[in-house]
Amino acid sequence: MIELGANRYGKAAIRVVRVARSPNGDQVRDLTVAIALEGAFEAAHTDGDNSAVIATDTMKNTAYAFAKDHLDGSIEVYGQALAEHFLEAPQVDAATVNVRSHHWSAIAVAGSPAPDAFVRGGEGTRVATVNVSLGGSMVEAGVEDLTVMKTTRSGFSGFPRDRYTTLVETEDRLMATKVTAIWRYGAPGLDYDATFDAIRATLLEVFADHESGSVQESIWIMARSILERHEEIAQIRMALPNLHHWLVDLSPFGLENDREIYTPTTEPHGIIEATVRRGES
Amino acid sequence: MIELGANRYGKAAIRVVRVARSPNGDQVRDLTVAIALEGAFEAAHTDGDNSAVIATDTMKNTAYAFAKDHLDGSIEVYGQALAEHFLEAPQVDAATVNVRSHHWSAIAVAGSPAPDAFVRGGEGTRVATVNVSLGGSMVEAGVEDLTVMKTTRSGFSGFPRDRYTTLVETEDRLMATKVTAIWRYGAPGLDYDATFDAIRATLLEVFADHESGSVQESIWIMARSILERHEEIAQIRMALPNLHHWLVDLSPFGLENDREIYTPTTEPHGIIEATVRRGES
Amino acid sequence: MIELGANRYGKAAIRVVRVARSPNGDQVRDLTVAIALEGAFEAAHTDGDNSAVIATDTMKNTAYAFAKDHLDGSIEVYGQALAEHFLEAPQVDAATVNVRSHHWSAIAVAGSPAPDAFVRGGEGTRVATVNVSLGGSMVEAGVEDLTVMKTTRSGFSGFPRDRYTTLVETEDRLMATKVTAIWRYGAPGLDYDATFDAIRATLLEVFADHESGSVQESIWIMARSILERHEEIAQIRMALPNLHHWLVDLSPFGLENDREIYTPTTEPHGIIEATVRRGES
Amino acid sequence: MIELGANRYGKAAIRVVRVARSPNGDQVRDLTVAIALEGAFEAAHTDGDNSAVIATDTMKNTAYAFAKDHLDGSIEVYGQALAEHFLEAPQVDAATVNVRSHHWSAIAVAGSPAPDAFVRGGEGTRVATVNVSLGGSMVEAGVEDLTVMKTTRSGFSGFPRDRYTTLVETEDRLMATKVTAIWRYGAPGLDYDATFDAIRATLLEVFADHESGSVQESIWIMARSILERHEEIAQIRMALPNLHHWLVDLSPFGLENDREIYTPTTEPHGIIEATVRRGES
Repeated sequence: MIELGANRYGKAAIRVVRVARSPNGDQVRDLTVAIALEGAFEAAHTDGDNSAVIATDTMKNTAYAFAKDHLDGSIEVYGQALAEHFLEAPQVDAATVNVRSHHWSAIAVAGSPAPDAFVRGGEGTRVATVNVSLGGSMVEAGVEDLTVMKTTRSGFSGFPRDRYTTLVETEDRLMATKVTAIWRYGAPGLDYDATFDAIRATLLEVFADHESGSVQESIWIMARSILERHEEIAQIRMALPNLHHWLVDLSPFGLENDREIYTPTTEPHGIIEATVRRGES
Repeated sequence: MIELGANRYGKAAIRVVRVARSPNGDQVRDLTVAIALEGAFEAAHTDGDNSAVIATDTMKNTAYAFAKDHLDGSIEVYGQALAEHFLEAPQVDAATVNVRSHHWSAIAVAGSPAPDAFVRGGEGTRVATVNVSLGGSMVEAGVEDLTVMKTTRSGFSGFPRDRYTTLVETEDRLMATKVTAIWRYGAPGLDYDATFDAIRATLLEVFADHESGSVQESIWIMARSILERHEEIAQIRMALPNLHHWLVDLSPFGLENDREIYTPTTEPHGIIEATVRRGES
Repeated sequence: MIELGANRYGKAAIRVVRVARSPNGDQVRDLTVAIALEGAFEAAHTDGDNSAVIATDTMKNTAYAFAKDHLDGSIEVYGQALAEHFLEAPQVDAATVNVRSHHWSAIAVAGSPAPDAFVRGGEGTRVATVNVSLGGSMVEAGVEDLTVMKTTRSGFSGFPRDRYTTLVETEDRLMATKVTAIWRYGAPGLDYDATFDAIRATLLEVFADHESGSVQESIWIMARSILERHEEIAQIRMALPNLHHWLVDLSPFGLENDREIYTPTTEPHGIIEATVRRGES
Repeated sequence: MIELGANRYGKAAIRVVRVARSPNGDQVRDLTVAIALEGAFEAAHTDGDNSAVIATDTMKNTAYAFAKDHLDGSIEVYGQALAEHFLEAPQVDAATVNVRSHHWSAIAVAGSPAPDAFVRGGEGTRVATVNVSLGGSMVEAGVEDLTVMKTTRSGFSGFPRDRYTTLVETEDRLMATKVTAIWRYGAPGLDYDATFDAIRATLLEVFADHESGSVQESIWIMARSILERHEEIAQIRMALPNLHHWLVDLSPFGLENDREIYTPTTEPHGIIEATVRRGES
């Protein structure tokens, strides 16, 4: 017998910009939204019965419409409103809304921020994912593409050597990575914007401050510090590619290279992932 | 108490090309390999103890060396050899090797394939993932980025309408999608190359032949046919973005548009995912 | 005094798909079109006077409308029709239309091509650029992203050595490149589709067949052969990145590597460009 | 007769990171460099004679070596040193060095910049191109990928209407663009870093401040202001894609949309290019 297993569907890459206009200066929210639903959709697959299938085009329209009425606050609140809306449909068992927020800041004119002109930039992308189901709701938030570098206080030594090992041990390497860090909030109803800013600041500060014996140790130190300092969060998942910066051998050219000239590479790269959480006791 | 949860690490984007040279014509294998390990790596995180941490640079070297001795056959066999090698280390509980194969074909010269010149191309990318652990091994294979289109026999109607629904029902739309299809083999030791070719052919043929009432129904029909015709596989997971092609309104220009001129878009897109498997009875 | 210099404007990334429906099987044209105009547009810049500025949105609409009536033949003919249309406006001195054509082929069902199902693929992208001005018209055509490899009969030696030279001379390297080749037709009114196919075949065949002493020599040999065999074309411009494939040093692992295992890299890459043309005498 | 026309070659995508170490804090320069040479290279094409062909691998090595000794100052000075070095070879008639600089800023720790930890980011990419030839040298500098938005004071009206025109005139649209601005310095030996910062600030400030009747007018106003305020520069070339933000029609949902909810699109996009320069009188 052949049967349908896990399935879900939705709309991705919905682009929404909201301009909140004010005499004191406009505010710009620039989002990429993805919506996914799970539930009683078996008949659509096996019987061609679409009577339960909320069109993904309708999801897109709803994302636009909710941007009008539910985007005064954080992206988490917007995501929650969207997810709860879809959960109201009886065939939906779970709705997941992922929001990526692209950063714009006011352009400085004569030292003051312009009320109506903005430049896109910033370091990393803020993300939030809200999942609501009959069992409750879960809010995750975090950053992606936050690229950082330590020029000292990073090493990698004491690793095992076998027939295929050529890497030289080092107590002083350049470490660069593009951080993905996604944390789960323990309870809803937070000031999500302030909390995000605080956790992001902790992440950067601990990254700058710590001694790294490996990317694994860096993840542990950053994640543990975040959990220690921010009791709102229950766990954090980090994924750190190791963006290798190789010291260039300048000796053929009669030049010394004392940790000065590097060439960065992206292929291949290490990739280290771990979840750190509050334990039972 | 703060504790380490799930974690894994490895090397990604390892690029390997092997040229098997022969008087009758060279053969080119062009691979992107990713290796990930799980196991007793807690001390690396929490104690800065790297004595168990097989360097990701060593993984890269091993992927190169194994390309010399273990790449005469399929990418599944190469992946299995690599994964089993890493599982031999006592600290490793599970090793996963993902291989993507980029297609080159011999250039035609005077109607015959050149022995030593190739052009890259093809439709979709072949992928394989081998996971080995103390509990056994699992081989998955499939295609990614296989972009296909049906110009007729695709519709979408009978879906629910609410305040946010504007989509018009249609019995005749253009359907385009970029197929990801990953199947799991029920037993090892197959002729992986021939099996892959046969399943891929079934997928394309059923895509071409079926009547689609929704992307969901298309997944079900293709996946069921593949399971019916290929008993080697235990389940298949498909993810189909709906790459919308909108009919252009030419009426302002005094022109008719009877399913002729479309504009394709990528943002936003529907995304439909499902697993279909053999059931218990 | 500050003055306006060279300027032009237009619409890029216009996506058009045309399905020519027929009982014998549909035909799909999938294009990305860019239109650029030059002419008397100074007042738009300096005086805010838009009375001459054909809206780029109008260009897009025109590209859609012309796909209905002018896309039965080649992309060159479509581009020419569009360009000539815009040149009719008195303020336009020159119009350039660039068309990129994405390849779809009919899916095989039971050995025959399906009439209404297609798979995207192919090797390289066909492009055409038509420029019309009061001085006449020029048609260029060619391929982009045609990735090819020679596993033998390629070397690079005899180059000068200075303080910064470490590259070893080789008589036998693997050469890979992603060809851009753009040729200019000497006269209009050709069978552009057949001519394109013939030139592309020559390009691949000569690439496969020749002995390469450098990428420069490869360009010369391919371009000269194309000019010799295809008198319709007046000149050809080629740009070949050198997609380095480095032999992996397997000796630390006790393995030989006789031109067998390579690692391809994309950063950095050589880039060689030249135009070859018919001379005066 | 078939002959070689214009040709050039070089190395692109050379990645170099230099860490200038200091007790007061390290400085990071992160560059992507491209080098291209023109000269007496005909024999390499037509005779397989490489005796004049400086290997592109040597160019890469030289870029690394010069990063050690010539990168204390601006990227323009580094590019000039590299270009002049290659011009010393008798077969070289012209050398062009393009440098793109990726921005890193020190991470704040307890309110102070860390001496050895950095985050990548910033708005736009600084670029410089130095061309030296027997006829002299030319230095161009600028920004790429500087994405900006005006939420008011932008319109587009008074354009001509024909059969294919459907765009509605507007006095108040949202304007977004990704600025490429490349200016040419009139004389060498400037403080390139300070000059770059000043011109970039002018560009942003004028963008924020001006009333735009079209993208063409915006280019003229920004370019003219830059030429007026910065006499070091002789001309400036700007290319502004029009990244359309379409007002979403919320009326089907019973909602008003007074310039509040937009959906941005990238395909298709307008593209406006112009050079503005100091005239003869």
